[in-house]
This record gives sequence, C-alpha cells and structure tokens, in this order.
Amino acid sequence: MNVILASTSTLFGGNYLEYLKDELIKLFAGLDEIIFIPFARPGGISHEEYTGKARDFFSKLNIRVKGLHEFNDPISAIDAAKGFFTGGGNTFLLVKTLHELGLMEQLSENIKKGKPYLGCSAGSNIGGMNMKTTNDMPIVYPSSFECMGLVPFNLNPHYLDPNPELKHNGETRETRIMEFLTQNNIKVIGLREGNWVRILDHKITTEGSEYTRIFEAGKNPYECPPGSMLV
Amino acid sequence: MNVILASTSTLFGGNYLEYLKDELIKLFAGLDEIIFIPFARPGGISHEEYTGKARDFFSKLNIRVKGLHEFNDPISAIDAAKGFFTGGGNTFLLVKTLHELGLMEQLSENIKKGKPYLGCSAGSNIGGMNMKTTNDMPIVYPSSFECMGLVPFNLNPHYLDPNPELKHNGETRETRIMEFLTQNNIKVIGLREGNWVRILDHKITTEGSEYTRIFEAGKNPYECPPGSMLV
Repeated sequence: MNVILASTSTLFGGNYLEYLKDELIKLFAGLDEIIFIPFARPGGISHEEYTGKARDFFSKLNIRVKGLHEFNDPISAIDAAKGFFTGGGNTFLLVKTLHELGLMEQLSENIKKGKPYLGCSAGSNIGGMNMKTTNDMPIVYPSSFECMGLVPFNLNPHYLDPNPELKHNGETRETRIMEFLTQNNIKVIGLREGNWVRILDHKITTEGSEYTRIFEAGKNPYECPPGSMLV
Repeated sequence: MNVILASTSTLFGGNYLEYLKDELIKLFAGLDEIIFIPFARPGGISHEEYTGKARDFFSKLNIRVKGLHEFNDPISAIDAAKGFFTGGGNTFLLVKTLHELGLMEQLSENIKKGKPYLGCSAGSNIGGMNMKTTNDMPIVYPSSFECMGLVPFNLNPHYLDPNPELKHNGETRETRIMEFLTQNNIKVIGLREGNWVRILDHKITTEGSEYTRIFEAGKNPYECPPGSMLV
C-alpha cells in the first residue's frame, strides 16, 4: 500500500496541505488525476466548494482533481480512479455517506491493491479499524461505525495534550481514549498536528515533527519518535 | 415536570454536586430514596463504585441511593422509583445501555408524570431530543441516538468558548454545533459549566452563574442571562 493518514490538513498559521507538499509529491508520483472525497463537509461547506479547495492545491502539483460527488456511478469511479484524497470535516457524516453509497469497502479494496491514498483528519479516521476514536460530534447516525481497516489500529487525529491551566471539567482527550480502551481491545494512535501515519508496502510508520502518543489496553500510554514502526 | 439538566456534576476546584446542593434539596424535597443510573461510567469506573459516589453525596441530604444495575428487573424498578439521577460519563455507553435494556422510554414516561430527575453532563444529554450534540467519543455503537425529549431541544453540556490562544486546528465547539445545524433543525442549548436547565411544571428556564449560548438554524448564536425562558 501507499498511504498517508494525516492528523490535519492545515497547520496553525499555515496554508492548506502546505506542510505535506513534499510528501504528497512522492505519494502521488506519476499520477495526473485523483478523486477527492468531499463528504465530511467541514463547517457544512458544499461538495463543490470543498472539491475546489483541494483542486486549487493539487493544481500546483499538476494533478487534476475530480470530486466523487460529480459521478453518477461512484463505485465505478472508484474502480477507475488512479488515487484518492479524503478531506477532513465531520467523521459521522463521512462514514454515513460512504456506507449509504456502498463505498467503504470499494475504496478499501482499491487502496489495498496499491492505489495511493491521502486522508486528513476525518479522512484518516476512516483508514482505521472503526471510527470509535473520532473527536467529532455525532450530528448524523451512520448505519455502522466500521471503517476501511487499512491499518490494524485506530487513529485519534488532532491529538491534544491536556491543558493544566484549563479550569474546565470536560474530559481530556486522554481520558476519552482510555474510556474507549475499557470497551475495545484496539490500539489507538494519538496523532498530534504535524504528524501522519505512512503506509509504504508492508511498513507502517509514524512521521512528522512531533512524538506520537500510543494507547493500548492494560498499558500506560507511551510516546514514539518520528520514524517509529507502528506494526 | 420537575427536572434539572446540569452541564457538569463538579465545578473546577469544587466537590461532587456541591454547587447544586441547595437546588437538589428543592428538587428532591420529600423524597427519602432515589435511583442512580450509573451506565455512563466516566473513566470506565464500575457501576458499584459510581453509585457509591452518588450515595456519599446524597447521604448528606438524607436521601438513600440505589443503583439501577442492582435490580434484576430495571423496568419495574423505574416504575417503582420516587426519583432519578443519571450521572455523567460517556453518552454513547449510557444511551446504548438504556436502549438495550429498553429503559429510555420507561424513564421518560416516569419523569413526564412528575417524578424528579437530575441529569449531569451525559445524564443531561439524554434529556434532550437526541444525543447528536454530545461532546463524547463514540466508543460504542448505540442502536439509536434518540433520547427522552424532556425538552424540545438538544443540549451541549460543558459548553466551551473558543480559546483564541490555542494553536490547534481541531474544530471549536461552536463549529461543531453549527455543523449539527446544517443537518438538523433542532435548537441547541450550549450549557457552560455552572449552568443548568430547569423544568418546573410547564416552565423551562436556564439557571446558574453563567450566560447560556443558544444555537438555531439560520440565526447567529446568541446569549441568554440566567433565568431566561427557553420555550
């Protein structure tokens, strides 16, 4: 496989996908067109507008972008595509739409055959076993929480360390993930912004500027430096 | 009805339910026993331990506490109970358990007949129309997101204002609720910590120390002072 599952599309103060540009040139090397999956609709943005945002960035890499919503037969479009990018937004909306259209498995199969895939945030969540470690609000009810399982673990994008100065009693991200582990025996990769999971052939590594925090049932959470093998 | 739906059980630096004590004396006036619903299990705490925490507090009010998990027939227990308290934790786990045991409607009917109800955090979410505005992580898959509908709107407990100093690109609470409104036409009450929704007979008001932020489809979010009528 040839996959990037990134914590975020945009670093604080940066432009869309800018920090990943060199990695994306390698990921999509030799491709002149990819399909963008806009279903997560951040802030309720339309499929057209969201696809335009991806199109603007990839035009700098001389890669054309088509939105998956533009096709009458999205299953055939996925089979015919050369590569994929799923943008961030609301994971519940993304997963609900993919299951409704029967696309989750189709996309997974195409990626497992070697077609390059970029996911950001919600688009990374769907690379995991299931979406049970998303941070998003459950604004719609998906028919299932199951995802593509490109990796044998779950991701928590935008992983955020507890802020000791916050006078607020909502759960920290770590508490939430520890609650997940009381109900599920699946490893969780806490991806800080600036980090991504890289799948290249059979190797899965954590990459980027930050350490990655890893959660497993029955263990204390631990930290891995960039370049660490995840499986 | 006679209901309190609170943002949180515990204010920063305070003790469990302490800030609500005077209100709870009024809510449960004349009762010597209530049923505690421990299914949200914050941090994975056991039903027994969680019930013990509620029991400790209510012993100061001379009210006995029985955990709903202690009964072989929870439906009959709800019908026989004098009042209820549902503690916070994970809303997905709470809602899944209530639906599995067929208790959501039973509880709702008993409260609508006038039995006093206290909800905190996840226990407040289930007082709304559905759980689609919870902040919690979807660690388990409930058979439905529908809730008791004690009020004709949804709640967002632990409502948190955006922090302009945070160098992080995860969505703010406001962004998430605005995304909810692109998919649902249901009013959302952003309950800051220190606030609660009070139902007394047919009157629904927002109470507590803070202003309450209200979100409606097609409107800018707006603020209401304590004491405002919500319906």
